Amino acid sequence: MTDLMSHEEMATVLPDGLTATAEVPASSANLGPGFDSLGIALGLNDTIGVTTAPAGLEITVEGAGAGEVPLDDSHLVAQAVFRGLGAAGVTPKGLRITCKNTIPHSRGLGSSASAAVGGLVAANGLVAQFAPDRVLSNDQLVQLASAFEGHPDNASASVLGGAVVSWTQAADDTSPIAGCSAECSYFATRLEVHPDIRAVVLVPETRSSTSQTRGILPTHVTHRDAVFNVSRAALAVVALTTRPELLLAATEDRLHQAQRAPAIPLTARWVSLLRGAGIPATVSGAGPAVLALTVRDIPAALVRRADAEGLSVHELTIADGARLI
Amino acid sequence: MTDLMSHEEMATVLPDGLTATAEVPASSANLGPGFDSLGIALGLNDTIGVTTAPAGLEITVEGAGAGEVPLDDSHLVAQAVFRGLGAAGVTPKGLRITCKNTIPHSRGLGSSASAAVGGLVAANGLVAQFAPDRVLSNDQLVQLASAFEGHPDNASASVLGGAVVSWTQAADDTSPIAGCSAECSYFATRLEVHPDIRAVVLVPETRSSTSQTRGILPTHVTHRDAVFNVSRAALAVVALTTRPELLLAATEDRLHQAQRAPAIPLTARWVSLLRGAGIPATVSGAGPAVLALTVRDIPAALVRRADAEGLSVHELTIADGARLI
Repeated sequence: MTDLMSHEEMATVLPDGLTATAEVPASSANLGPGFDSLGIALGLNDTIGVTTAPAGLEITVEGAGAGEVPLDDSHLVAQAVFRGLGAAGVTPKGLRITCKNTIPHSRGLGSSASAAVGGLVAANGLVAQFAPDRVLSNDQLVQLASAFEGHPDNASASVLGGAVVSWTQAADDTSPIAGCSAECSYFATRLEVHPDIRAVVLVPETRSSTSQTRGILPTHVTHRDAVFNVSRAALAVVALTTRPELLLAATEDRLHQAQRAPAIPLTARWVSLLRGAGIPATVSGAGPAVLALTVRDIPAALVRRADAEGLSVHELTIADGARLI
Repeated sequence: MTDLMSHEEMATVLPDGLTATAEVPASSANLGPGFDSLGIALGLNDTIGVTTAPAGLEITVEGAGAGEVPLDDSHLVAQAVFRGLGAAGVTPKGLRITCKNTIPHSRGLGSSASAAVGGLVAANGLVAQFAPDRVLSNDQLVQLASAFEGHPDNASASVLGGAVVSWTQAADDTSPIAGCSAECSYFATRLEVHPDIRAVVLVPETRSSTSQTRGILPTHVTHRDAVFNVSRAALAVVALTTRPELLLAATEDRLHQAQRAPAIPLTARWVSLLRGAGIPATVSGAGPAVLALTVRDIPAALVRRADAEGLSVHELTIADGARLI
């Protein structure tokens, strides 16, 4: 912990015994055409508690991810808490962090972004009690949380809630595939999702790694395919907010789903099955979860078949952004 | 005319002396990131009158384009009128067509699309009087008018008014550059433009050809540039409707403007000049006109400089769609 905080030499030391708890939603990203651009917050929450202590770092994790990652200052939530405190110019002598996780890991439901956002918002809760004028804004939270991932769509959905349009200003974008170092600036704006739209996720047991599946993407695409996604992404904003009947056309994609399908065949097959049944479905993030944004029920026969194939089917609310509880 | 109508063998013959007049707005397309996808209707109108006659085809043109194109059944307005009548299953014995044009030609203000839409809507005016149940819907007008051009953004703006998101389902899209034959299906949905947004066009004396400048576009682009435009096009819908303060970011583009800049250097320089001054400016269509969508005045010094460089500067209303008058 000393190393992590050593660059905050001017930081004000927080008193012991301050405590804050953040609730942060899961998210789905890409949403068909909106690679790195469109996200949506989903009502499946992780809860992050932080308490200042006289010394040390103690992390406990319950639920998803418990026992899987080292409980030291390499833990993403801890890094996010320190990053948030540092950005506000404060530092603890020690910290206790508790994570109660319900967002499954490595399924395409944004658990990493939620961890980063949850840690930042919990840190913000400490700051609010000690130095209210230093509380981080939503814009700052979007920037800090997105920098952990290199893309803003999951993180900004978990910060702002609803659906989001996010975008990146890259300091160095010579690589043909999008993605950023900490040098990038990230932005997002919230959309109010039409109340008729329901989010259903189909979650396989298998896991996927975004960094691996990103490597599958082609460096170049045809101008036509680029324009195809441009039109559908613009349409997606309309469909999500005011014309849900256009969601099937608005979730068409040429830039990432077909390219990644060989790595996630079960997911790709289910996206096709649902779309064939008229249900606007997309790969959730980099998969393997499938997201359906629909105004009607998924046919019962398809739900039974998904269950038989090992996918768990959940209808989730479209959530508000992370908050202190 | 006989050839044009010979495929409408079952058509009902219209009585002589029916008359209809359509007023159709200009349009700007592409709108930065929204190549072939985003358009906006501008308050600069052509007026198309049609009257059924006992025989022959008589076309008169006043204003823009007068004396420049043959006044026979190859005239775009005449083709559109016949197409509209044919789609409604009616046919005239003869026609008189009058065009009073204020939309300058070959400047990137959608005059061809306006001619097609104006002809179709005028035809619809005749149909409405004779066979009201055969009146073409806006969806049909978008389809028929877009098919004349091979892209839907200008035509659908002139049909629907306001700003539009348009998209294409191509029957054959093996070519890497977008664009369609009559085999394509075209769709569009209207956006209500935020009332603070003002449209200013800067129109050079020079002309440009969309078909030529389309040939300049690269067949392939990086995945990063495609994603860049995806995010800005989604953002453009938000900025145009609810958050005009985001228009500068929302009109950034990597897919067509820089690529075409060498063919329209004056235009490219003015887009840069305006953007450098914080004014969200784009190439209007394929140029050479420049479109600024702005919530504040263009600095007077820039307007004087534009005038000195031979660009005429006009603030135009954001128009409603074509209508019968």
